[in-house]
Amino acid sequence: MTGAEGLVHTLLRSGVDVCFANPGTTEMHIVAALETIPGIRCVLGLQENVVTGAADGYWRMASKPAATLLHCGPGLANGLANLHNARRARSGIVNIVGDQAISHRPFDAPLTATTEAWALGISPWTRTVMDATAVGRDAADAVQAARQGQIATLILPADTAWDAHGSVGEAIPFPPAPEPALLAIEEAKRALGSAQPTLLLLGGRSLGATALADAHRIAAATGAPIMAEMFNARFERGRGRPPVDRVPYLVDQALAKLAAFKHVILVCATPPVSFFAYPGKPGCLCPPDCEMHVLATPEEDGPHALAQLADALQAPRVPPTDRGTHPEIAHGALTAAAAGQTIAALLPENAIVVNEGGTCGPAVFSPSHDSAPHDWLDLTGGAIGDGLPMAIGAAIAAPSRRVVGLQADGSGMYTVQALWTQARERLDVTTVVFSNRTYGILLHEFAGVAAKPGPTAVHLMTLSDPAIDWTRLADGQGIEAARARNCEQLADLLRTSFGRSGPFLIELCM
Amino acid sequence: MTGAEGLVHTLLRSGVDVCFANPGTTEMHIVAALETIPGIRCVLGLQENVVTGAADGYWRMASKPAATLLHCGPGLANGLANLHNARRARSGIVNIVGDQAISHRPFDAPLTATTEAWALGISPWTRTVMDATAVGRDAADAVQAARQGQIATLILPADTAWDAHGSVGEAIPFPPAPEPALLAIEEAKRALGSAQPTLLLLGGRSLGATALADAHRIAAATGAPIMAEMFNARFERGRGRPPVDRVPYLVDQALAKLAAFKHVILVCATPPVSFFAYPGKPGCLCPPDCEMHVLATPEEDGPHALAQLADALQAPRVPPTDRGTHPEIAHGALTAAAAGQTIAALLPENAIVVNEGGTCGPAVFSPSHDSAPHDWLDLTGGAIGDGLPMAIGAAIAAPSRRVVGLQADGSGMYTVQALWTQARERLDVTTVVFSNRTYGILLHEFAGVAAKPGPTAVHLMTLSDPAIDWTRLADGQGIEAARARNCEQLADLLRTSFGRSGPFLIELCM
Repeated sequence: MTGAEGLVHTLLRSGVDVCFANPGTTEMHIVAALETIPGIRCVLGLQENVVTGAADGYWRMASKPAATLLHCGPGLANGLANLHNARRARSGIVNIVGDQAISHRPFDAPLTATTEAWALGISPWTRTVMDATAVGRDAADAVQAARQGQIATLILPADTAWDAHGSVGEAIPFPPAPEPALLAIEEAKRALGSAQPTLLLLGGRSLGATALADAHRIAAATGAPIMAEMFNARFERGRGRPPVDRVPYLVDQALAKLAAFKHVILVCATPPVSFFAYPGKPGCLCPPDCEMHVLATPEEDGPHALAQLADALQAPRVPPTDRGTHPEIAHGALTAAAAGQTIAALLPENAIVVNEGGTCGPAVFSPSHDSAPHDWLDLTGGAIGDGLPMAIGAAIAAPSRRVVGLQADGSGMYTVQALWTQARERLDVTTVVFSNRTYGILLHEFAGVAAKPGPTAVHLMTLSDPAIDWTRLADGQGIEAARARNCEQLADLLRTSFGRSGPFLIELCM
Repeated sequence: MTGAEGLVHTLLRSGVDVCFANPGTTEMHIVAALETIPGIRCVLGLQENVVTGAADGYWRMASKPAATLLHCGPGLANGLANLHNARRARSGIVNIVGDQAISHRPFDAPLTATTEAWALGISPWTRTVMDATAVGRDAADAVQAARQGQIATLILPADTAWDAHGSVGEAIPFPPAPEPALLAIEEAKRALGSAQPTLLLLGGRSLGATALADAHRIAAATGAPIMAEMFNARFERGRGRPPVDRVPYLVDQALAKLAAFKHVILVCATPPVSFFAYPGKPGCLCPPDCEMHVLATPEEDGPHALAQLADALQAPRVPPTDRGTHPEIAHGALTAAAAGQTIAALLPENAIVVNEGGTCGPAVFSPSHDSAPHDWLDLTGGAIGDGLPMAIGAAIAAPSRRVVGLQADGSGMYTVQALWTQARERLDVTTVVFSNRTYGILLHEFAGVAAKPGPTAVHLMTLSDPAIDWTRLADGQGIEAARARNCEQLADLLRTSFGRSGPFLIELCM
């Protein structure tokens, strides 16, 4: 048995059965092992950031890790940005990087690079397999690490993959998320009983429907509002779930929204900070005299803590939320607001919304409080280019559900080759491109720096010369696509796409 | 004066007047400074590997560095693979990375990443500007480092960019490439006089036309053949220059070609090693008893050393090479060989060939020994996705010359968004896509590992389901494109493109 075969057997025994891949020469023995040992679904991405973004989306919906298969240091480098996003989402990924044979490293052949050093920034668990006999143990360790919600980078030099002394590792158990201390529940209860304005700030796993229902109990019993973090890995929303807003992205809005609070109870969340620094503005978004209380760290079992807190407060159950205000299709011109409302109105039951909508994303978020129940996945690390790849992984993890990608055009171009994989795998993904032909957020930011963008700034922040034709980019990669110029066309195209299987792309000409 | 303004003034004083960029919020003050201080041409790339690959191509043709402008750690990460290739080409780049404000780093906001650590693998000169007053000195140091043929990464936190105490640095002189020691010339002369088979192996700056003419003198006087390294940053070729082959990529071919030599004289080259390791095959491509002689290291002035060696050998001048065998247009089916011959026949005078042709590249290389004089730029680091971006930088560095991109389809998809910048900047780039719908090199490598690729291997190594339509990918980004199904159509399209200005893409259906 080769080291590569030992790796594949170990992955299977540890429950890993999807591999997003872009292999190269140093991974040929692993490809051969994936061929001869059945059970792992292999999905090709045409650039590594597609591969790693897909693995991020897969974890978010499957709650178990996929493997990646990357080629040497530069292949890893290409996928680092979406691994950065995955790290911020606390997504578990078994990040397998083939590399130059150990015997070959001293020759410093052209592809030789600092693979381990590049991995460490996004993958605290990083290990190079030094011998084929160790591959079983190392791979099982990697899966164990990944199942706890982290990126585990396993570097497999080509000679350890081809060596005939491979080994198989048994699955290693991993602990459940730790329960928060009783003291934390007592402290949160005290804050809620203080008669001072108190916020429940939810993040991570505390944004599931059950946890949200318990948070709603607490809110109803105490009057403390609920808010979610600025960007969230997975947020169960829509009718039946409480309408929970996020901490705003724009600093002034966030400061205003948080100004009154004297206590913030953090549930799998961290204290809210501004995304970027601005001259003369604070980095912490809560007022200086606001006290932070950790009910559960992001690693802890926040849902359990919320249930315990609700019980401790003797908070009665709250019936499922239905405000009776279902969003309705808008008419006429495709403003962000009208498009957002139309999408919210037609969102299918159990949709998975992958939001990389940039400045247009919030226009869908607000009205979709009252959409059909759905999951909402944000760009968690701010490294644009996660949307189209994440949709791949989410669709593979949840094949019976429709993925709706809200895609800014500037971000979409980062990983435009992801569309090909959506076509290849016939995934039920509807991508809505908000084609406003600008880096909209930058034009906003630039306004805070200089009076008016001149020719250089316009050159660097607009995509209008030449205009990008998204229908051709999609069609050239095997995806049917069409353009919507008003809300009626958008609604028609959404209905068409939701009524059939496979991918579809709608370019909104805004 | 802001730190950002100090940066821009310093770049200009140091002779940097092109900036390939994809800025974000932390770079807005730099964009504002580029706006108000005229003199730097700004070129937007829609993903950072486009930006860094363009800077690589620019150095190769301009022999001076461009600046990049990247956004935080993940923006740098996206550009690392082409920085890796640039490092292998010894291209100088002033690699500017904006980042979170120093004051903001403790908050660990979502985009915060290990920027410095990621840079170090490709950029031994890496420095974070810690204070706006230091920006002039730091930027001038960075340009000095880059001018010596390395990547110099200058990280500029947002608060040092917006702070009003910016400074301007004067250009710092840098030493010319050192002359090789006289002893090295003596040693090479001895090897050439040994009556044992001796090879002149040329790399780096020794592949310019003048150096090649001196190498030709040596070869004619001594009978020692000349060879170039496997992949070269810039190689002046075509009629009037000696027909010099490269060390073959395939190990068995390389071993056979180098088997007879007892001496190798390295001129700006390193001892030839195989690109990857293979079970039972050597990593060194020369026989164990072959002696290496360093006439010039890659950092040294190889052209000067060749001239001195030729003089020391009293080697007479050799008339410019013209073998009288001009390549001719092929007819009929578009095999790699026929396409290669057709391209070689029509290559315009002074063309710049950017070769990321994968398995099809060699089919153009061989017949183009006798093409019109041209420069040939290879993928030097093996990290695919350098071709389309490199063409941007080469075209901007040499605006009066036609760039001809030889592009494998698999590699091309890595940075397909580079086409947009070619269109935006109206660059004279003709891209020829060898659309064979496979990772051809991998199918070859896989054959050495397993008998026949089964469904999984085929799934991971072919691009045929769905077929990619390159004319639509180009057209969707504003580039006119057409398909060639035979050599006559290819010739017609090449002539059309060479006869007008601006970019054009030809998809070869192979």
